[in-house]
Amino acid sequence: MKILVELWLIAPISALISILTGFLFSNYINKQDSGTEKMQDIASMIRKGANAFLKREYTVLSIFTIIVSTLICAFLPSPLWLTAEPIRNIQLTLAYLFGSVCSGLAGLFGMNIATKANTKSANAAREGLNKAFLIGFRGGAVMGFSVVGLGLLGVSIVYAITRSPEIVLGFSFGASTLSLFAKAGGGIYTKTADIGADLVGKVELGIPEDDPRNPAVIADNVGDNVGDVAGMGADLFDSYVASIVVVMILGQVLNLIDIPLIFAGIGIIAAVLGALTVRVGRKGDPGKTLNRGTYLTCLIFAILTFLISYILSYNLRIWGATIVGLISGIVIGITSDFYTSEGKPPVKKTAEASLSGAAVNIITGFSYGLQSVLLPLIGIGVASIIAYFICAPMGPGYALFGVGMAALGMLSIVGLVISNDAYGPIVDNARGIAEQAGLDEEVINVTDQLDAAGNTAKAITKGFAIGAAGLTVISLLATYQEIVKGATGQNITFDLMNPLVLIGALVGIAIPAVFSAMLMLGVSKNAFRMIEEVRRQFREIPGLKEGKENVKPDYEKCVDIATRGAIRELLPASALAICTTLIVGFTGGVLALGGYLAGCIFSGLLLALLMSNSGGLWDNAKKFIESGKYGGKGSDAHKAAVVGDTVGDPFKDTAGPSLNTLITVMSLVASLFATLIVEYNLANLIFT
Amino acid sequence: MKILVELWLIAPISALISILTGFLFSNYINKQDSGTEKMQDIASMIRKGANAFLKREYTVLSIFTIIVSTLICAFLPSPLWLTAEPIRNIQLTLAYLFGSVCSGLAGLFGMNIATKANTKSANAAREGLNKAFLIGFRGGAVMGFSVVGLGLLGVSIVYAITRSPEIVLGFSFGASTLSLFAKAGGGIYTKTADIGADLVGKVELGIPEDDPRNPAVIADNVGDNVGDVAGMGADLFDSYVASIVVVMILGQVLNLIDIPLIFAGIGIIAAVLGALTVRVGRKGDPGKTLNRGTYLTCLIFAILTFLISYILSYNLRIWGATIVGLISGIVIGITSDFYTSEGKPPVKKTAEASLSGAAVNIITGFSYGLQSVLLPLIGIGVASIIAYFICAPMGPGYALFGVGMAALGMLSIVGLVISNDAYGPIVDNARGIAEQAGLDEEVINVTDQLDAAGNTAKAITKGFAIGAAGLTVISLLATYQEIVKGATGQNITFDLMNPLVLIGALVGIAIPAVFSAMLMLGVSKNAFRMIEEVRRQFREIPGLKEGKENVKPDYEKCVDIATRGAIRELLPASALAICTTLIVGFTGGVLALGGYLAGCIFSGLLLALLMSNSGGLWDNAKKFIESGKYGGKGSDAHKAAVVGDTVGDPFKDTAGPSLNTLITVMSLVASLFATLIVEYNLANLIFT
Repeated sequence: MKILVELWLIAPISALISILTGFLFSNYINKQDSGTEKMQDIASMIRKGANAFLKREYTVLSIFTIIVSTLICAFLPSPLWLTAEPIRNIQLTLAYLFGSVCSGLAGLFGMNIATKANTKSANAAREGLNKAFLIGFRGGAVMGFSVVGLGLLGVSIVYAITRSPEIVLGFSFGASTLSLFAKAGGGIYTKTADIGADLVGKVELGIPEDDPRNPAVIADNVGDNVGDVAGMGADLFDSYVASIVVVMILGQVLNLIDIPLIFAGIGIIAAVLGALTVRVGRKGDPGKTLNRGTYLTCLIFAILTFLISYILSYNLRIWGATIVGLISGIVIGITSDFYTSEGKPPVKKTAEASLSGAAVNIITGFSYGLQSVLLPLIGIGVASIIAYFICAPMGPGYALFGVGMAALGMLSIVGLVISNDAYGPIVDNARGIAEQAGLDEEVINVTDQLDAAGNTAKAITKGFAIGAAGLTVISLLATYQEIVKGATGQNITFDLMNPLVLIGALVGIAIPAVFSAMLMLGVSKNAFRMIEEVRRQFREIPGLKEGKENVKPDYEKCVDIATRGAIRELLPASALAICTTLIVGFTGGVLALGGYLAGCIFSGLLLALLMSNSGGLWDNAKKFIESGKYGGKGSDAHKAAVVGDTVGDPFKDTAGPSLNTLITVMSLVASLFATLIVEYNLANLIFT
Repeated sequence: MKILVELWLIAPISALISILTGFLFSNYINKQDSGTEKMQDIASMIRKGANAFLKREYTVLSIFTIIVSTLICAFLPSPLWLTAEPIRNIQLTLAYLFGSVCSGLAGLFGMNIATKANTKSANAAREGLNKAFLIGFRGGAVMGFSVVGLGLLGVSIVYAITRSPEIVLGFSFGASTLSLFAKAGGGIYTKTADIGADLVGKVELGIPEDDPRNPAVIADNVGDNVGDVAGMGADLFDSYVASIVVVMILGQVLNLIDIPLIFAGIGIIAAVLGALTVRVGRKGDPGKTLNRGTYLTCLIFAILTFLISYILSYNLRIWGATIVGLISGIVIGITSDFYTSEGKPPVKKTAEASLSGAAVNIITGFSYGLQSVLLPLIGIGVASIIAYFICAPMGPGYALFGVGMAALGMLSIVGLVISNDAYGPIVDNARGIAEQAGLDEEVINVTDQLDAAGNTAKAITKGFAIGAAGLTVISLLATYQEIVKGATGQNITFDLMNPLVLIGALVGIAIPAVFSAMLMLGVSKNAFRMIEEVRRQFREIPGLKEGKENVKPDYEKCVDIATRGAIRELLPASALAICTTLIVGFTGGVLALGGYLAGCIFSGLLLALLMSNSGGLWDNAKKFIESGKYGGKGSDAHKAAVVGDTVGDPFKDTAGPSLNTLITVMSLVASLFATLIVEYNLANLIFT
């Protein structure tokens, strides 16, 4: 058994390799030329805005984190005054803080490079596609490899010190809460700016996207970084860590605690190898290149995990469950691609519906969004049932472990998934800088091509993220059950005909809806302020509208509005969701809480898929019209499609992607508090 | 015991009283003056259009019904070639047909009077509010009392002949499938016409609502009748019957089969008494009058059921559960009122958001719609848990019986609820006729007042309908479990950690979404055709736009487009939903089917509440602006609000209300096929 104990060290070693790769890529970026003075000016404004936001966000969050860690220290895993092992409370608290810090750092590193890579990619675009693409991709990969590196390293360190998956759960909780806030705050920021910039600039005045006259244009570019780069990184950081911890907990009683760590380590190596192959030739298609990298990584992962399973004589059923997850991740990604890609019927039909005006465009896009939930949900269901039955013959407890491994399999290659995803906003920014700095039409065309590839990759990665979150939270439900069993000695079942489970489920269904509503209302409130400010500047700054030389809008003011608004709105929604979880638990007990989690998961998945896909679809329907169909730019159909796109913005970039993190956080809260809730709850008092 | 056996006859007697009341009201309507020749012309066009639609709809549905009844006869409750009692197959088939016919007849009666009451109410408005209101209300009440009368009479007849609640389930299934189609078809029709009329008339040309120049105006008025009158009646017919049957089945083993029938009978008497008191004075407020009628009916119901429970020495716990349902129905209604009423913050904020354009209006309204699901879901949960625990001490089986009684309690006063609801489209039509016939401004003002009262009442009744459907389907889930238990002798639990239940639930979540999508795409496709046609008429008919005398649009063409489209689109969505239920059952077995039902119920309730409330909210935000706020009619904010209202149209009048019926139908399919599925399913083959 000696060899097994040490083998899990493959995890921290791979994590270090991952961080090193990120470091090398970041060196590569730093060496590149940042372009003309004007470009550097713009980039520096973006960087300054992004850093200012992160600084304020992290200040608020550190206060929150300190409060929560005090509570954890006092109450978890057992109240300090009742426990025989106060050291565990301290361990859990430190793990929680460590998780928050790692998640925050990953966001910081990634964004730091992203805000440099944008102008360098724009500059390289002056010489063609090849290098500009590479800068964009590697800039994104810094984020990708920071996330998986810090995530897996953190898990390994906490595990090495405590040897207790339950304490690692605290690390995961720290990572998830920070992610939730980062996602919510970034999401509100980015859409406040985007809507403000678009509605006044594009719709009211008819000036192009990224026009330097638009006062909100810098805020918009900052938003891409804080929302899409840092936010997406945070989102997957949290699912990634949770998926590993869950399988560690489920594997604990089966003596299989090493496998998730080893497989996660191999996943990182596969992603590093995959990333190194990503290069596009002079005539290559960047979108296809990104996807090829993904498929190659999957293949490497499948082969390496098979070999190691064979060598170490692991039961191949576990490998099978892992690969089921991996494959279904890709399948789910492809279905979202169908609903959001420009060439496919849903986008075309929605574009056509724009001929009847904005309302019909929205009804049509929303309807396809509703349709799009079917296949991914079946995909998650089929993946879990196959994984379950592959591992069930190994004995009791293995079946759910198999479902956990499927989630881990799906997330194993997440280093590359994030790289592809963070590539998007970087080249989007590059396009913005090229436009604002007045580069040639040809250069802008190159950045357009890069941008389009980002959208293709994004559809697949978003499907991936939601699928992975779905499988992970299903495993988290099993973990919760396991922990309750540990605390009570009883097997609880989440039987929907039990009235406590049922009322929990009914409340649970509503929470993701209310959470989304709060975020989107935050966006619409802020966008309102932003629109007023942009209108004011155009009205009051003479010569701005006409584009007179040396007349500049007040970019900082818009950046400030977006920042303040996002900071103000990010806490309430997330805090509400966490508090409701505790309220349901401490009043209704573990059964109500189980039903509540199930309800949250169901409605969270439904709304996340609906919002992400319909948002992407409206975006591409607008682009389809802009490519000259149904009247092209400036036509009535285009105006209608812009309304749809604007509605889709907070759907796909604020509420939708935050929901994954929300359900993970709530599941973790439930698992962490389960033991306490078993003892203290109102339902117990009333019914026993 | 003799007295008990006969006491349930209170049900058919009350049902006859209900039908008689409907008949008297309909006589009252017929005696009223129909107004000027022009008004009669318009009303006759509306009536012709509505009848033509119903005729075609019923033709299509009778083919469908014959096919289904053949299948029922062959397979249910047991395959004809295996059963020892083929008579039961025939009974079930006849019950199914009888249910369809009763549901269809209720729709026909109600609509027939509604299409007469509209012009008579408009005519009476020339002399003031009082009589016009009474005609509107009594016109609606014909629908209300036809529905409950035919529903309860049908149940009583089937029960009297067969003495088997399982056969009564067939009656309920017939009623529900017909309702589903009527709701879907009517919903598509009404919104096709409404959107077509509004988008070209109001938005593009800026002519007023109900302007006789608009070619789609008659189709729009027809839509109010086939969609809102016949549709809403069908919707509540099906919930009403299902709620009674469910409690009969749950009460069977407890020997309490009479109680639901007796209580339902008392509910009708309370509604008749309540309806007779509804009158508005010369200076009265019609909205308050409608609500007062509702509260009074509730009170009468509560007192009478208490008295009869006391006299017959029923356990008062059962009465308590019933009243819990009744109260929670009102509470749920009041919360929807908060989210959709003009005076309240959600509507005001959404109206204010229109200042930033259509997109922000939609984001805001949609967000409030998401928020609005919380309280009703908690309401349903609390009602079921209280009813459960009130009745639990009576012994095993009583707890779920209590939940069923709560649903029945909520629906007991449905006769009055439908009357209030059908009042809305009648006076809406009256307003349209007054406008088209060129009546005085003063008369139009009176009809406006009547119309506004309809909207107030509608918010409460919609909340009622969804709450009742929620409780009913929860009881249906219990019924399903009961039937499976009867077939297998085993208690099945819907444990979410069972992979079959889980995959069922994941698929189930998607179905209401896909179903809504199909209906709304149907609307957007048809609206597209309608818009093209309206644009064509304005383009090609000389003098139409300018309103030259003797130039008439081709109304029939628009009526025809709406009819054809609705007929074409109503079958696929509903058939898909029924087929998916059978597919899940016959592949995954009873557990997967149980999970599937739960998933459908959860996502169905979420989407129904979201769509109904956000739709109502957008409508009223537009009206709020039209009342002169934020720039008033014709301002940019108004245009933005019109887009929101149009998006909300298929939300609140097509997809939202059909979802209740959808989940009832699917639950009934599951219960009817449960025995067969236990024996024949793929999961059985694979896993045993």
